[in-house]
Amino acid sequence: MIILCNSIRRVQSVLINTNFFSKRNLFLSVYNYQNKMEKFKLASRYESGQFNVWIEYNNLAMITKPLNLGQGFPDYEPPSRFSNFLAEVASEKNLYSHQYTRGLGHIRLVKALSKLYSSLINREIDPLNEILITVGAYEALFCTIQSTIEVGDEAIIIEPFFDCYEPLVRIAGGTPRFIALKNTKPNSSVSHSSDWKLDPEELASLFNSKTKLIIVNTPHNPLGKVFDYDELTMIADLAKKHNVLVISDEVYEWMVYEPAKHIRMATLPDMWERTITIGSAGKTFSLTGWKLGWAYGPANLIKNLVVVHQTAIYTCATPVQEATARGFEHEISALDTPESYFQNLCKELRPKMLFLSNVLKETGFKPIIPDGGYFIISNWTSLENKIDLSLETDKYKDLQFTKWLSKNVKLQSIPFSIFFSENSKPSAENYMRLCFFKKDETLKEAEKILTTWTSKLS
Amino acid sequence: MIILCNSIRRVQSVLINTNFFSKRNLFLSVYNYQNKMEKFKLASRYESGQFNVWIEYNNLAMITKPLNLGQGFPDYEPPSRFSNFLAEVASEKNLYSHQYTRGLGHIRLVKALSKLYSSLINREIDPLNEILITVGAYEALFCTIQSTIEVGDEAIIIEPFFDCYEPLVRIAGGTPRFIALKNTKPNSSVSHSSDWKLDPEELASLFNSKTKLIIVNTPHNPLGKVFDYDELTMIADLAKKHNVLVISDEVYEWMVYEPAKHIRMATLPDMWERTITIGSAGKTFSLTGWKLGWAYGPANLIKNLVVVHQTAIYTCATPVQEATARGFEHEISALDTPESYFQNLCKELRPKMLFLSNVLKETGFKPIIPDGGYFIISNWTSLENKIDLSLETDKYKDLQFTKWLSKNVKLQSIPFSIFFSENSKPSAENYMRLCFFKKDETLKEAEKILTTWTSKLS
Repeated sequence: MIILCNSIRRVQSVLINTNFFSKRNLFLSVYNYQNKMEKFKLASRYESGQFNVWIEYNNLAMITKPLNLGQGFPDYEPPSRFSNFLAEVASEKNLYSHQYTRGLGHIRLVKALSKLYSSLINREIDPLNEILITVGAYEALFCTIQSTIEVGDEAIIIEPFFDCYEPLVRIAGGTPRFIALKNTKPNSSVSHSSDWKLDPEELASLFNSKTKLIIVNTPHNPLGKVFDYDELTMIADLAKKHNVLVISDEVYEWMVYEPAKHIRMATLPDMWERTITIGSAGKTFSLTGWKLGWAYGPANLIKNLVVVHQTAIYTCATPVQEATARGFEHEISALDTPESYFQNLCKELRPKMLFLSNVLKETGFKPIIPDGGYFIISNWTSLENKIDLSLETDKYKDLQFTKWLSKNVKLQSIPFSIFFSENSKPSAENYMRLCFFKKDETLKEAEKILTTWTSKLS
Repeated sequence: MIILCNSIRRVQSVLINTNFFSKRNLFLSVYNYQNKMEKFKLASRYESGQFNVWIEYNNLAMITKPLNLGQGFPDYEPPSRFSNFLAEVASEKNLYSHQYTRGLGHIRLVKALSKLYSSLINREIDPLNEILITVGAYEALFCTIQSTIEVGDEAIIIEPFFDCYEPLVRIAGGTPRFIALKNTKPNSSVSHSSDWKLDPEELASLFNSKTKLIIVNTPHNPLGKVFDYDELTMIADLAKKHNVLVISDEVYEWMVYEPAKHIRMATLPDMWERTITIGSAGKTFSLTGWKLGWAYGPANLIKNLVVVHQTAIYTCATPVQEATARGFEHEISALDTPESYFQNLCKELRPKMLFLSNVLKETGFKPIIPDGGYFIISNWTSLENKIDLSLETDKYKDLQFTKWLSKNVKLQSIPFSIFFSENSKPSAENYMRLCFFKKDETLKEAEKILTTWTSKLS
């Protein structure tokens, strides 16, 4: 603002004098101003990180005030024991709960994670060298990709994908190579996330000497697909054949609907040594605001992540780490009891998933029933010829439809195409994403909104 | 470890067979193993970030169990009202205190910071566009340097410097240009941090068309120097002349000892538009474990930092932000009352600083009396010929001395040379850093340790 004012002031002072030299001064002023701004622009490697769809849709929601099924977090509280742990830590007179802790992670937390995951992957994880605590799974992704990718390297990304994967690879100087999960049963009456598959030959064709890593997300956001053993083995075999690192983003690991089963990439034969597995306290305890995550894997890889971590943020908040450690200790001891949050969460989410799926079916949408996570992708195109999207100016139809829906029906969803690379976006235009981790009243309200609206359509 | 085992296994299997082909296999195995490891090494741009002196000195302390004046945080609790705010936030039944908040910063926190700093810099700061909340001042430095430096750019760093400045510039592809503060009164009987000055001509000679930024740290860590108006003006004039960004690291802004006064770079004429000012809740409230910081500056620069922030971590922990906001609201209302922590902190620290300075003087050291911060730099060389450092293998004498002291006298300090670039380290060998933000008993114990030890020296 001040720069603009200065610039206007310069222009004004020039306009007062109207002789030739003043015109020359005006030209020089504008030239100098542009030069100055040029120097203060964003470093070019960050250009791909500028656009952020979440800010756009959050701003839309602030205007339209819709029933919001766009955001990926619950609108009700998880069991109070987790937040109580934080209250407990904060109010204890323990100095060291409020001062810097160990850079790689608070000892009590890495010990708890080591205990939990050692038994889950059937291998002893060294809490001091094989785990890094990060600011959410997000920073774990950042550290892994930044520490691995050199300029010119390639990274394989499976579409649809959590939207930060692509800029993270580009900012590090890498080239993303995309492969889409394809709907193998486009004509079936009920669609399932497990219908969406990778073509093994297409995937094999993407690997070459420049391939540094592949990112696998299971359970998958936004599709809700849970990769089965054969699918993971196919990916693992290619990774081993081409000596490629696998980033296994497993933040929805506890949200899997039977008979689907979560399989950890690191448990596949000879995969530990080339896998960084990423998890999230925010997703695990339904407290996304805690922004605490982790990466585990072999020490020689984790030590690379640590270098990025210690030059970007150094260490994570101590009280949140201590509280998360207590949360895990509680859950480890409750794992096979009725108190287990991990098990109760699935029981709680499944009926919500089925309810929203039915609402969508009954109101003319065609949902893809997920096996995991807390999102439903739904085809919306059977309603397309009943509404007028001509006032929506976005390039892709799913952005037009979701914005129209937020403005006119007061229901917010997220367009599917934002989870695809530029070339693949047209293939995603027919879908939207809805979050079902919401109060039953919220989901009933969604039913009412959709039923009322669609019953009026001719 | 597993990789090493695999490798050993391969070697063993080869040794069982001793024919020619097995030897060839052994050669190929080793060759393949090296190739594989080569692919999984740290990305080259991060090489300068690998060494971390803090880990080395923390490990030393775990072995020697010294009285630790090395660490830069208090060994006693700040007023409980701040941690109580966190306990309050955690135990309230407010869903939104535990879910994702706004990426640029929790609204209540940026509003509080805007209110505080608008009055301090005498200019209205837009809370929504001119402030970014970060994971400590550390991430604010990271975001500013990453978003500004292109490969080949230069950044001016004043020595001594907070040790992350150099790798942060190098990782972004920049070249640091160093200039040391020089002791202008090396022979005076009492040394002050204000004796250490920049040579204006030397500083001017570092600026050229590649210079993108200069980092100024006031109050200064580790020297305790508080830059005065003339010094800041000299730097500001060069920054304006060469159109350079100034990063003003002011994390010790509330720890200034009268008659010294903290002057904010952004308040100098025409400096707002080219200054990013960095602050820290950890330093401000003596809760380093909260890992919350911020950057404020003009919107056109802050929006660049945001791109880095949203691709590295996205947003900071919500409950910690909410608690920090309440802490600031309390402090703003208490600013000129006896309850003001900012004012009490100085009153509390000054006698500690004077006490430790006297202890050092009386035991044969030559301390540099600081004007700000909570560290004292002290010359230790008058004791050099009374002790035997021959068993210490470090290249620089201050590392030898501080390690010897930790092992033999059970007092831990930090070597001064770690705050200098490679070429300047020899100029810093005569000094060590001590932290005086410790309980009175701790400081008295330090007195006892030093008196007992030095009284035995001949």
